[in-house]
Amino acid sequence: MFLAAEKQWTLLDWKPRRSDMLVDPFGLGKIVQDGLVFQQNFSIRSYEIGVDGTTSIESFMNHLQETALNHAKTVGLLGDGFGSTEAMSKRNLIWVVARMQILVNRYPTWGDTVQVDTWVAANGKNGMRRDWLVRDGNSGETLARASSKWVMMNTSTRKLSKMPDDVRVEIEPYFMDCAPIVEEDGRKLPKLDESTSDYVRNGLTPRWNDLDLNQHVNNVKYIGWILESSISMLENHELAGITLEYRKECRKDNVLQSLTAVSKDAKGWPECVHLLRLDSGAEVVRGSTMWRPKRINNFGSVGRIPTDGM
Amino acid sequence: MFLAAEKQWTLLDWKPRRSDMLVDPFGLGKIVQDGLVFQQNFSIRSYEIGVDGTTSIESFMNHLQETALNHAKTVGLLGDGFGSTEAMSKRNLIWVVARMQILVNRYPTWGDTVQVDTWVAANGKNGMRRDWLVRDGNSGETLARASSKWVMMNTSTRKLSKMPDDVRVEIEPYFMDCAPIVEEDGRKLPKLDESTSDYVRNGLTPRWNDLDLNQHVNNVKYIGWILESSISMLENHELAGITLEYRKECRKDNVLQSLTAVSKDAKGWPECVHLLRLDSGAEVVRGSTMWRPKRINNFGSVGRIPTDGM
Repeated sequence: MFLAAEKQWTLLDWKPRRSDMLVDPFGLGKIVQDGLVFQQNFSIRSYEIGVDGTTSIESFMNHLQETALNHAKTVGLLGDGFGSTEAMSKRNLIWVVARMQILVNRYPTWGDTVQVDTWVAANGKNGMRRDWLVRDGNSGETLARASSKWVMMNTSTRKLSKMPDDVRVEIEPYFMDCAPIVEEDGRKLPKLDESTSDYVRNGLTPRWNDLDLNQHVNNVKYIGWILESSISMLENHELAGITLEYRKECRKDNVLQSLTAVSKDAKGWPECVHLLRLDSGAEVVRGSTMWRPKRINNFGSVGRIPTDGM
Repeated sequence: MFLAAEKQWTLLDWKPRRSDMLVDPFGLGKIVQDGLVFQQNFSIRSYEIGVDGTTSIESFMNHLQETALNHAKTVGLLGDGFGSTEAMSKRNLIWVVARMQILVNRYPTWGDTVQVDTWVAANGKNGMRRDWLVRDGNSGETLARASSKWVMMNTSTRKLSKMPDDVRVEIEPYFMDCAPIVEEDGRKLPKLDESTSDYVRNGLTPRWNDLDLNQHVNNVKYIGWILESSISMLENHELAGITLEYRKECRKDNVLQSLTAVSKDAKGWPECVHLLRLDSGAEVVRGSTMWRPKRINNFGSVGRIPTDGM
C-alpha cells in the first residue's frame, strides 16, 4: 500500500541519451567512487528561498529527488522505467518509497552551491535503501543527511513483492555495503486522531501545480500540508529533522486533514507527530518533525539570514 | 500602489563577490552583447514539470526572476539593494513591477536546457522595461518571450516617483535601445466582479511556503491562484500567454478571492480575464490569459508529453 512514489518513476521511461554525461558539463551530475556514488551540484536559486532567506525543506527534498532520478538515468539501470529494470519490467514490478528521514544542520541561501552525493544499498532481503549527503560546495560542511527505504510493488496486483533472483542479479552490483547515513529513528510513529492532536487543519486540497504526470500529488508537496498545521512553529523555529511514512497516494480530488501533536524533547525544543488523512479516514502520510529555535538575525526579526559572503 | 515586487529586491543587498562570474563556470550566467544582455542557462529539473510532463508557467517565471536578479547582481548596479542604485538609495527609491506579459510557444521538459537572455530599456521618461527571450539550449528555438514594466517608488512616502537626474545618469548606460520583445497588449484589463465572472474561488490563503523574505506573497505564486479558478481549463488546454497587472501586495494573513471570466478568441480558443482581490475588495492582481488546445499524446490522456530524445 505504498503507492505515493510510483509516479516519480514513470518519468523515467527512457534511456540515457548523452554519452558525455559522465563528465558533467552542464551540472547534471556524475558518477564518483568506483561507480557507486552519484554526485551533482546545485546552485541555490532565488525562488528556492523563503521567509527566512534560506532554502526550504521542500527545496532540499526536490534536490534529493532530482539526484535520485539522475543517478538512475546515468547508470542506465532502466528498463521501461526506473522501478523496472529489465527483469522487473517483465514482472510488472516497480519501486515505491515507504519511508524518508532527513536531518538538516544548516539551510543554504541564494547563490550558494550545494553538492549532493547519493547511493543505494540493500535494505533487508527485499528492499532498497537510498541515502543522500548534502554538503556546502565551497567548505564541504555537511548541510543535511537523508535516508529512504523502498519496497517493490507489483503494478498488476498492487501488492508488495519479494525481490526475484533475476532482479537481484541486476541490481546488487549497484548496492553499496555501508550503514545508513542517518541512524534510524526506530520509534514507531503513533496514530493520531483529533482528540490527541494539538492542531487540526481541515479542507486541504491539491492545487493543480501540486500534481505530477499521473495526476498524483508529488511526494514533496505533502510537507507543505504537514507544516500548514504547525505554522505557529515555523515563525520561531526551524525544522531540524523530518521523518515521513508514505501510506497511500493522494489524487487531485482528495480533501485532506492535517493533524499535529506537539511535545518537547530533552532540551525543551518542540517535537511534533503528524498525520495527513483523507476524509474517509484513510492515512496518507504519518510523520514526525524536530525543531530548534531560530537564531535572531541582525535586523531583530525572526528570520535567520546568513550574511557571510554578502 | 505597485508594491508587489518590492520584496524581491530586498534580496539583493550585497555586492558581487566573484570576479570570475563573467565566465559562467557554474551556470550562473554571463554578460553578452557589449555588456547589455545577461544570459543564463537552466537545466530543467524533474520537480519543475507537472501533470503534462512539461514545465509550468510558474517555472518559466521563476527562471525570469532568477535571471533578472543575477543580471542586477552581475553588473554591480546595486547600492543597498537592486531597487536602489547609489543615487536611488540616498533618495529611498526602489523599483517595483507594475506589469508582466509572457507568451509561451512551447514548454520544455525534464533534462532540457533553456537559455534565457534578459535586458533592460527605458519605458517612458520615468520607467524601466525588462525583457526576456527564452530559447531551447540545443536548437535555439524560441520557447517564450516576456516583457515587464517597472516604476520607481519612494519607500518613505510609499508613492511613485519620477526618475531623478542623478539616477538617470547611473542607469541609462545599461538601457538597450530597442522595441519590446512582446508587442504590448494595449487592451485595458476590465474590472471583474462576481456578477461578470464565470468562475469564483473563495478563501484562498497563502501557505507558509508562498511567502518570501518579507512575509509577502511571492509574485510568481499569484499565478497559481489565478489558475485555481480556471482548473477545468487546465485539463484540456495549455496556457499560451498571460498578462499580469500588480496592484497591491498580499501578506500572509490575507484571504483572497479569485475571479475568472471566459470568452473565445477569433479561433474559438479560450481567453480569460482574471482578478485576485482581498476580502475588503481591494484588487491585488488583474490578469488575462490566452489558451490553446493540448495536443493528445500517445497514451490518449490529456497530457502533452514530448517524446523526442526519450
